[in-house]
Amino acid sequence: MAVSNIRYGAGVTKEVGMDLQNMGAKNVCLMTDKNLSQLPPVQVVMNSLVKNGINFKVYDNVRVEPTDTSFMEAIEFAKKGAFDAYVAVGGGSTIDTCKAANLYSSSPRSEFLDYVNAPIGKGKPVSVPLKPLIAVPTTSGTGSETTGVAIFDYEQLKVKTGIASRAIKPTLGLIDPLHTLHMPDRVVANSGFDVLCHALESYTALPYHLRSPCPSNPISRPAYQGSNPISDIWAVHALQIVAKYLKRYVTQQGIETEQKKCDPPSCKMCLVLECPEWDCPLEAWSVDIEECHWKGQEGCHGMSYPISGLVKTYKAKDYNVDHPLVPHGLSVVLTSPAVFTFTAEMFPERHLETAKILGADIRTARTQDAGLVLADTLRKFLFELNVDDGLAALGYSTADIPALVRGTLPQERVTKLAPRPQSEEDLSALFEASMKLY
Amino acid sequence: MAVSNIRYGAGVTKEVGMDLQNMGAKNVCLMTDKNLSQLPPVQVVMNSLVKNGINFKVYDNVRVEPTDTSFMEAIEFAKKGAFDAYVAVGGGSTIDTCKAANLYSSSPRSEFLDYVNAPIGKGKPVSVPLKPLIAVPTTSGTGSETTGVAIFDYEQLKVKTGIASRAIKPTLGLIDPLHTLHMPDRVVANSGFDVLCHALESYTALPYHLRSPCPSNPISRPAYQGSNPISDIWAVHALQIVAKYLKRYVTQQGIETEQKKCDPPSCKMCLVLECPEWDCPLEAWSVDIEECHWKGQEGCHGMSYPISGLVKTYKAKDYNVDHPLVPHGLSVVLTSPAVFTFTAEMFPERHLETAKILGADIRTARTQDAGLVLADTLRKFLFELNVDDGLAALGYSTADIPALVRGTLPQERVTKLAPRPQSEEDLSALFEASMKLY
Repeated sequence: MAVSNIRYGAGVTKEVGMDLQNMGAKNVCLMTDKNLSQLPPVQVVMNSLVKNGINFKVYDNVRVEPTDTSFMEAIEFAKKGAFDAYVAVGGGSTIDTCKAANLYSSSPRSEFLDYVNAPIGKGKPVSVPLKPLIAVPTTSGTGSETTGVAIFDYEQLKVKTGIASRAIKPTLGLIDPLHTLHMPDRVVANSGFDVLCHALESYTALPYHLRSPCPSNPISRPAYQGSNPISDIWAVHALQIVAKYLKRYVTQQGIETEQKKCDPPSCKMCLVLECPEWDCPLEAWSVDIEECHWKGQEGCHGMSYPISGLVKTYKAKDYNVDHPLVPHGLSVVLTSPAVFTFTAEMFPERHLETAKILGADIRTARTQDAGLVLADTLRKFLFELNVDDGLAALGYSTADIPALVRGTLPQERVTKLAPRPQSEEDLSALFEASMKLY
Repeated sequence: MAVSNIRYGAGVTKEVGMDLQNMGAKNVCLMTDKNLSQLPPVQVVMNSLVKNGINFKVYDNVRVEPTDTSFMEAIEFAKKGAFDAYVAVGGGSTIDTCKAANLYSSSPRSEFLDYVNAPIGKGKPVSVPLKPLIAVPTTSGTGSETTGVAIFDYEQLKVKTGIASRAIKPTLGLIDPLHTLHMPDRVVANSGFDVLCHALESYTALPYHLRSPCPSNPISRPAYQGSNPISDIWAVHALQIVAKYLKRYVTQQGIETEQKKCDPPSCKMCLVLECPEWDCPLEAWSVDIEECHWKGQEGCHGMSYPISGLVKTYKAKDYNVDHPLVPHGLSVVLTSPAVFTFTAEMFPERHLETAKILGADIRTARTQDAGLVLADTLRKFLFELNVDDGLAALGYSTADIPALVRGTLPQERVTKLAPRPQSEEDLSALFEASMKLY
């Protein structure tokens, strides 16, 4: 069983050269994107590689929101380089691209679709050994450093799909809060929205013990197993952090970067964890993490894939790319007021509880209004964070809804844990209700 | 890297036969102790093995608080049986004994001391492959199902030591809250005290970023890495559960077992997690866990080893054994009021916070009284749970203190993360202060 070792600490990126040396690596592929390649996170990695005498080549052609074509370019680079280890420095797009490059260069005779999830690909199990991959996330939200999943847009069908195998999990994740300093504003916000929706979806998902039918053999239990006591703890914690830091980052921009010590200690905005003080000695802590945090997903994530995949001309602010782009976190969060209004009737107390964490006064709220209370809270939150006013602002109109619904239906892996089943009519209504937010 | 897959759910024990079949096991060793062998947790396992056509032999000679001698008896049984898988049903003693039996029968030419921690043993790394081991804990507190540690009393030296290797981690843990129904009262209480002290020690341990010196290579970081944001979350959660359920179990005995549905759902007392309702369908959820929960330990655990190891004639209530015994949880908790009075000056806010979780009114408490407030809270808690009145009640007197101190000093692995260093004089004073609690 693959497990990612995750090491946290301000400055841990500096150690990457030693980690590679400890792994015996001599010829390393450093993957990143064109924006990051000029910024400190990549510079720190390169300096560490040089200092430790590690040969490396840089691939900085990663596409933000990657496609099969962009994956294949990276794979070609990896095949030619015959690398013995990989370092991915960037957001989910970079880490996912690096996973694919590692996989296919380790299995050079495979067709691209061999390992892609069925029904689009063949979903073959991975039996070849891969090279070590060190993931250095630079956004606060991806989580890709802990997962065995690589997501991409399959251009022919205009759908998001991916590769899912424990074999492609990074060997080591270096979580360095200093990197959040270099995130553009909307990247901070959108990364945070992904965390926000994961937490809300996980906490309000069907509980594991109401899932049915029960499998006749334990081996048949699904990976997405519903809400449970452990994922609940993480979901609530993540919501508390989003509520505290994400809003503060937008409303008090920069304040926390200017002071040397924050109270509570936090650098710019560390969405996942409060980070140590700036001037702490370089000391880290580590944990082996399985991707156990989000065990249920539902509406927002299921509906997000066509919202990203069918993008027309929208170009998200702060993403310096040469193609239309709806960032993942934005595609997820725009439907959240509609989705949670819809789902609240199943577990209204949990919906109210999350609204409270996000700042709502629920003392006089009625149970039957739980969905509306949470939706209003989310709308206010998104408004304050300058989020585009619904799907219409992204260029979608009512005429696009049938295509958006068709793009959601194949995401059953994700949507079947929604507390309330969604028919095609339901999905249409949810997209319609998400056209305008304010 | 070894990782334990943990599956939770009321009734999951019934699936053990299928799990063994999935692993291809044909000749299984079932380990337990003499008390449990007559009780439902073992019966359920045996029924499942029979139903799935798995041959097995039972070893029910596990010693509660095992010794090198009792380990070696189990190892002999395992060697003769040539088993292809193990199932351990019991508390930490049983699971630890089974780990040792699996290890040494897989490495038949090793001397017993080869794998025992230095300096008592040789601390050799484990390079042989072991057989699958399924751990079915029957107490709510051991955590042995997730660790690569097996603890025993080394009789010659009257000290606790152990074997520590990821190789001996159980392959699978089945956490079945129904088993807590069969725990005698003091076993419930003492298991809970172990959780209580782990949580307090972890939460008040030296934070990871104050640990020094920083290692020159990341590979040299210690396993016990100090308090950190993830262990903090677990520590606080565990304290909340202890505060809510452990006291309720003792004060309202049995009430929750008599009603079919509890509000909130909980069976007798599930210390680690709230368990599902009795009449839920048999559905489970799983998580891969590394032993990441307690990342700092300090006084209580360090001082507990000689308290158990030097036992004279004390026989703990509710433990049906033929030898003197201070249960682990009891040996840990008796020094807790003294230890946290001593450590509080370093992180008084955290000490006050834990006192509050345990029920103290801290609104008017002064920071400089944090240790006393927590100590008083603990004493009240222990008194209400009918805990023996200090080390004197276990048969120790002032004359034993030098031996108790000598027995604590070698536990540096554990005590060096104490927020405040302890000299020999400090330890003497802590033992003295723990002679009487009320």
